[in-house]
Amino acid sequence: MKIDLNCDMGESFGAYKLGSDEAIFEWITSANIACGMHAGDPLVMQETLRLAVASGAAVGAHPGYPDLQGFGRRVMDLTPQEVEAYTLYQIGALAGFARSAGVELVHVKPHGALYNQAAKDPGLADAIARAVKRFSSGLILVGLAGSLLIESGLSAGLRVAREGFPDRAYRPDGSLMPRREPGAVLQTEVEVCRQALRLVQDGRVDTLCIQGDGPHAVAFARAVRQALVAGGVTPARLDQIV
Amino acid sequence: MKIDLNCDMGESFGAYKLGSDEAIFEWITSANIACGMHAGDPLVMQETLRLAVASGAAVGAHPGYPDLQGFGRRVMDLTPQEVEAYTLYQIGALAGFARSAGVELVHVKPHGALYNQAAKDPGLADAIARAVKRFSSGLILVGLAGSLLIESGLSAGLRVAREGFPDRAYRPDGSLMPRREPGAVLQTEVEVCRQALRLVQDGRVDTLCIQGDGPHAVAFARAVRQALVAGGVTPARLDQIV
Amino acid sequence: MKIDLNCDMGESFGAYKLGSDEAIFEWITSANIACGMHAGDPLVMQETLRLAVASGAAVGAHPGYPDLQGFGRRVMDLTPQEVEAYTLYQIGALAGFARSAGVELVHVKPHGALYNQAAKDPGLADAIARAVKRFSSGLILVGLAGSLLIESGLSAGLRVAREGFPDRAYRPDGSLMPRREPGAVLQTEVEVCRQALRLVQDGRVDTLCIQGDGPHAVAFARAVRQALVAGGVTPARLDQIV
Amino acid sequence: MKIDLNCDMGESFGAYKLGSDEAIFEWITSANIACGMHAGDPLVMQETLRLAVASGAAVGAHPGYPDLQGFGRRVMDLTPQEVEAYTLYQIGALAGFARSAGVELVHVKPHGALYNQAAKDPGLADAIARAVKRFSSGLILVGLAGSLLIESGLSAGLRVAREGFPDRAYRPDGSLMPRREPGAVLQTEVEVCRQALRLVQDGRVDTLCIQGDGPHAVAFARAVRQALVAGGVTPARLDQIV
Repeated sequence: MKIDLNCDMGESFGAYKLGSDEAIFEWITSANIACGMHAGDPLVMQETLRLAVASGAAVGAHPGYPDLQGFGRRVMDLTPQEVEAYTLYQIGALAGFARSAGVELVHVKPHGALYNQAAKDPGLADAIARAVKRFSSGLILVGLAGSLLIESGLSAGLRVAREGFPDRAYRPDGSLMPRREPGAVLQTEVEVCRQALRLVQDGRVDTLCIQGDGPHAVAFARAVRQALVAGGVTPARLDQIV
Repeated sequence: MKIDLNCDMGESFGAYKLGSDEAIFEWITSANIACGMHAGDPLVMQETLRLAVASGAAVGAHPGYPDLQGFGRRVMDLTPQEVEAYTLYQIGALAGFARSAGVELVHVKPHGALYNQAAKDPGLADAIARAVKRFSSGLILVGLAGSLLIESGLSAGLRVAREGFPDRAYRPDGSLMPRREPGAVLQTEVEVCRQALRLVQDGRVDTLCIQGDGPHAVAFARAVRQALVAGGVTPARLDQIV
Repeated sequence: MKIDLNCDMGESFGAYKLGSDEAIFEWITSANIACGMHAGDPLVMQETLRLAVASGAAVGAHPGYPDLQGFGRRVMDLTPQEVEAYTLYQIGALAGFARSAGVELVHVKPHGALYNQAAKDPGLADAIARAVKRFSSGLILVGLAGSLLIESGLSAGLRVAREGFPDRAYRPDGSLMPRREPGAVLQTEVEVCRQALRLVQDGRVDTLCIQGDGPHAVAFARAVRQALVAGGVTPARLDQIV
Repeated sequence: MKIDLNCDMGESFGAYKLGSDEAIFEWITSANIACGMHAGDPLVMQETLRLAVASGAAVGAHPGYPDLQGFGRRVMDLTPQEVEAYTLYQIGALAGFARSAGVELVHVKPHGALYNQAAKDPGLADAIARAVKRFSSGLILVGLAGSLLIESGLSAGLRVAREGFPDRAYRPDGSLMPRREPGAVLQTEVEVCRQALRLVQDGRVDTLCIQGDGPHAVAFARAVRQALVAGGVTPARLDQIV
């Protein structure tokens, strides 16, 4: 049994540092690199890509809404045409660095509010899938397992990766429990590791999202990976899975 | 005798319109498309590239300083590392749209203050040449004829294109007369056309910069092209010249 | 009978010019000046304020969403706390120029998507009213006649100005017909002038919004003012009306 | 003997946190609050001002170049007119929050590259002094002791505060040793405290700059204040000194 472990990376900006990228790379297999609209800047992108290549992690674009002040977490009412063009722009910007480093982008995973909107808005989901397809039909589109974004990717003829969240509680129907509900965010390593194993064993996900931010990010990343390996699961890049 | 006619394009931004792109395309052979840092946005880039492809013009990236408020015309004291990464970012962002449209970028021409700085600052000139080379050694680097940017491009092993300005007066030594001096900017179609022909016949330039902005831009573009053709000069894309 | 004639002003940004501010000032009584988040920049604000003072027009702040690329016309899902702080920031920024010019701000009118959201979202409407009140209880809050923003202003103890649109069709219940419906935007000077007079005579508005953009903006502004005066209505600043 | 202890505050932006503002306030007497161009955002400004008022620290504006990506540390070649308008904009934006909190701004201190440029460029120094004067002739202008900014402030009829740096080595002529020279930045608490006392006792400064960033910022702030108090110096706000 194989699983990809992905993490949002390269979210620093100028003098502002965010995340523990260097320490996290040891425990993951795919890096979603911010592309400068909601986070990241050209120097950060270049350096994050360098770290990813050095660690052997797959490199993917992590496009978001053009809202640095809101870190891409605030819904913006963009047209599908805007989302498509913004996504293609961001993929291309990262791809220039990848090309220069001699690697190819493996996947695209939307960020924050764009990710959440694309899970349930078919117009946005299709727009993102179109942008990915226009850049390269070889790219893997990462979306919430069971969401419209996965459907849009499949309809567009893309390979897709269904994502699960080890630190989030799920409802019986398989949907994520909203963050505002009590118990929605799992707090202990034990819970998170158990949830990670369950998600993989259920066979409903191809990749697990590892939190890269917060004081315990590195410890949790290590714990999840070790628990998976102990459970007979092999961490592997998305291009070896889907 | 052949000459490229290039024009800065795609300088609109959101609700803000600038230039007469559609009408200019008829008279030029290369479009330098702004990449979102000093001007342009993803939708504008996509549409400008579409127009360029439809007209047969070569598509090039027009990277600038990250200063929308100053339109990239204000000197910023960036390190060569920053300039290199910002340039690569912008080339990549445009290249995504080009790839999607089935064309390849032909050239890169820095914008405004970055262009002027790169003409005389060897560190910046080398940084830009490195960024271009990292993206593709097949790209043509456009710089002021006789400037350090041309030298940096040659040193990096790139094809280069020496640019001249039909609407600007030159000093006897071949350098541009600064704008603040009287007579620095040629005002009439007759003068501009004569200067265009002279620059081409002197054999010191590969491409002429056609102004795309201002009330007379389209008339001047047409006049210059027609004067050149009447003088036995054939307009041609850079990739057919250098 | 008196009416204020307001117009959105100062929407240029750097090299990007928008609107016909100078020519419009002759026909209006209040200027809503963009404050740098969705449009405008410090130099534009300063110059627009100078023109307003010279013309005798009242000066008001025109705060919008922080979205230059979308010109503040795209809904952003901000919290009321964000809207309150962003609004206060923008009022203060303009007030510095006003203070320096020896005038006081008379009113605040939200822009674009913020205006529209505040008309129907009580949380945003209250947030804007709080920001205005925090800056000065003497400011007049301008909102769509009959909207929640007017109610929030009144609840906050502010003077309010009910706005009408001479170039927009209204439904029988007094609400604006959505732009996408046929006939929603009046096209001729005759229609717009008739509608202006009707809105004033119905007594349901304190101020009319004069379009400052577009090829016919100046002609329409003049026509509306002249029609009102011919109809016995006296144009007057908001601080002489509400 | 009295001295003001100032610190740059409110430099966080959206999700990006910078500095240890809350812990530093205990040890300083004046807060220079970033105004959104190089750092800070409306929510951060509002919260920082609240903390300042609660601690009794004087509130001042900390305007910088419009370069968030470079944190205002990169020289930008702005005209004096641009610097004047940008500075007035930023003062006004902060003043709105101050007014709402019932306090008045006490001082203005330019940030980063703007501070350094204004120390030696008379055109920029005058532009900043003009902006401060236009907002209020009661504001205190803070500049490097012995610099042109101090002269411009005096020429404009403003009260000025001469600033010293406890953690920076000075040359025999009283100028700051450039950061790139060995020994330019003092490393130990003992050195910094000794330098702080010396600067105060020499009588050449009215305010000391306390570093608010870095792992040891709070410890150094406390140490400097305690050393000064032990040396018979009373920390006091600028408006009680100059």
